[in-house]
Amino acid sequence: MRGDSLRLDDAMAILERTPASLTALLRDLPERWVQATEGAGTWSPYDVIGHLIHGERTDWIPRARHIMAGDPRPFEPFDRTAQFTNSQDKSLGELLATFAELRQENLTTLSEMNLTNQDLSRRGMHPELGQVTLRQLLATWVVHDLDHVGQIARTMAKVYSESTGPWSAYLSILRDRQR
Amino acid sequence: MRGDSLRLDDAMAILERTPASLTALLRDLPERWVQATEGAGTWSPYDVIGHLIHGERTDWIPRARHIMAGDPRPFEPFDRTAQFTNSQDKSLGELLATFAELRQENLTTLSEMNLTNQDLSRRGMHPELGQVTLRQLLATWVVHDLDHVGQIARTMAKVYSESTGPWSAYLSILRDRQR
Repeated sequence: MRGDSLRLDDAMAILERTPASLTALLRDLPERWVQATEGAGTWSPYDVIGHLIHGERTDWIPRARHIMAGDPRPFEPFDRTAQFTNSQDKSLGELLATFAELRQENLTTLSEMNLTNQDLSRRGMHPELGQVTLRQLLATWVVHDLDHVGQIARTMAKVYSESTGPWSAYLSILRDRQR
Repeated sequence: MRGDSLRLDDAMAILERTPASLTALLRDLPERWVQATEGAGTWSPYDVIGHLIHGERTDWIPRARHIMAGDPRPFEPFDRTAQFTNSQDKSLGELLATFAELRQENLTTLSEMNLTNQDLSRRGMHPELGQVTLRQLLATWVVHDLDHVGQIARTMAKVYSESTGPWSAYLSILRDRQR
C-alpha cells in the first residue's frame, strides 16, 4: 500500500472494533491469563489495556489537535509506563469499559474534525522522530492497536509453552519476540 | 508453567472467547483488511477463519475422541489448506457464524466427556510428532487459536506498513515474521 493511501473510514473501521474485540477476549478470564507476562519487564494483558487507555487520553487526539492547530512545537512525549500507576486498584473489567468509552468519544471527535485529504497531509513535530503527518499519526493509531492485540495473544499463548509438548514445533507464536 | 498443569476450565475460558473476539474484530470490515495477506503463500484473515472452521470439524474433537477410544493408529493428518476449497462462495460473516456455532458445539462435547486428570494423561499417536497426550492436544487447541489471532493482527497491521512513516521504527509488528 502506498504511504499516502490511508482512507479515514478504513482506519476508523479498525479503531472502532478494537475495544469490543479485546473485551470479548479478556473479560472475566482467569487471572493466570490476564496477569501473565513474557518475563521480567514485559507487559501482561492487564498492563496493555492500561497503556491503551493512556494513549486515548494523551496521545492520538491531542496530537491530531496539535497538528491541526499548526503548533510548531514538538508533541508532548508519550509516557509508556503510565499504566503502572494509573491502573492501580482497577479491575480489568473497569479498564476495558474505560477504554471502550474513551475510544468511542475519540472517534466521535475525529469524525467531527471533518478532516480533508489536505488536512491529512498537515505536519507536526514528533519529539524523537521529527516531522510526521496527520495521516501517519492515524495509520500509527491503527497499527498500534493491532500490535497490542498481537502482543496479548502472544503473551497468553506462552502460558502454555510447555503444555503443548511436541506440538510446540508447529506453534511459531511460542518462539516470537518478547517485548 | 509446568507441562502437566493445564486446567480444563482455563483452557475452555480461552476457547469459548475466540469466536466472539474475532467476530468483533472482523465482521463487516472493508475488504482491504479481510483479504489482505503478508505476500504470496500467506493467508488473509478470511483464509484463517476457514482454517479455524476446518480444525473444529476434523482436528480437535475427533482427535480427543481418538485418544479416549484408545485407538493405537495415528491420527488422520490435518489438511492445512482445506479452507481454499471449503470457503468458496461464503461470506466472511457466514464463516464467522459457522466458526462460532461449531466451537460452541465442540465445547459442549468436551464438557460432556467429563475428562478426569487421568484421562488428560492418555496418549495418542500423531502422524508426524509421535506420542502426544490429550492434555497436550487441548493446550495446542488454545495456543493455535491465539497464534491465529496474532497472525490476523499482524497481517492487517502490515496493510499500513508504509502509511505509518517514521513511526514504523516503534511498531515491531510491521517487521514480524510472515507465515
